[in-house]
Amino acid sequence: MKSWLDEVTWNAEGLVPAVAQDAASREVLMVAWMNRESLERTVASGEAVYWSRSRRKLWRKGEESGHVQRVVELRMDCDSDAILLRVEQEGGIACHTGRERCFFLKLEQDQWVTTDPVLRDPALIYGRK
Amino acid sequence: MKSWLDEVTWNAEGLVPAVAQDAASREVLMVAWMNRESLERTVASGEAVYWSRSRRKLWRKGEESGHVQRVVELRMDCDSDAILLRVEQEGGIACHTGRERCFFLKLEQDQWVTTDPVLRDPALIYGRK
Repeated sequence: MKSWLDEVTWNAEGLVPAVAQDAASREVLMVAWMNRESLERTVASGEAVYWSRSRRKLWRKGEESGHVQRVVELRMDCDSDAILLRVEQEGGIACHTGRERCFFLKLEQDQWVTTDPVLRDPALIYGRK
Repeated sequence: MKSWLDEVTWNAEGLVPAVAQDAASREVLMVAWMNRESLERTVASGEAVYWSRSRRKLWRKGEESGHVQRVVELRMDCDSDAILLRVEQEGGIACHTGRERCFFLKLEQDQWVTTDPVLRDPALIYGRK
């Protein structure tokens, strides 16, 4: 029997980009990648699980930081090659820099300007202090 | 001199995923891809220009449909491999199916369910009627 997972168009590496959007603030928090297993686990657990391309392993968001993402809604786009998660972001922090979202570099007059306050020192988040 | 374009981490195909978010409704409209030239043209023109992977050419969003995206703000994420555009979506329609956004497939009990109304018949949008 064909699974909903079979309807996703995985790329050559077996991945799709996944966009996480905060259900409350509606900000786009981050873009990460999912393989079949991570998407399956995301739905089974109700918490975002990504595929870390750099570490080449499943990455349960928040496993180190505590900043888990509870999935409120999961969507796919018209050509089935991108996923959208509406999430409740634990701690209100998605980024490893301690900011709400990873998109804190804003283009202004041909320069990337760092915006958005650091809500919590990453050294505290990752227990190095 | 190093350009802001050099600070983007392009993938092996020279691309980055770009997320378009509606500046008014705040919905995530679509995920598409940009190469260096499309990002440069997006900023120069103030309207979203993507790279069509299927057609292998620059794709000025709205060139056929009229549904151009005026860029209100452009951001990059912490590892510089994803772009976020806040846009004013002409016609309030981003999807080629005539819907506001491409993410109209919602997972419900292990099924992708089609949601979101068709605001305009695609045959009318693309002049086939």
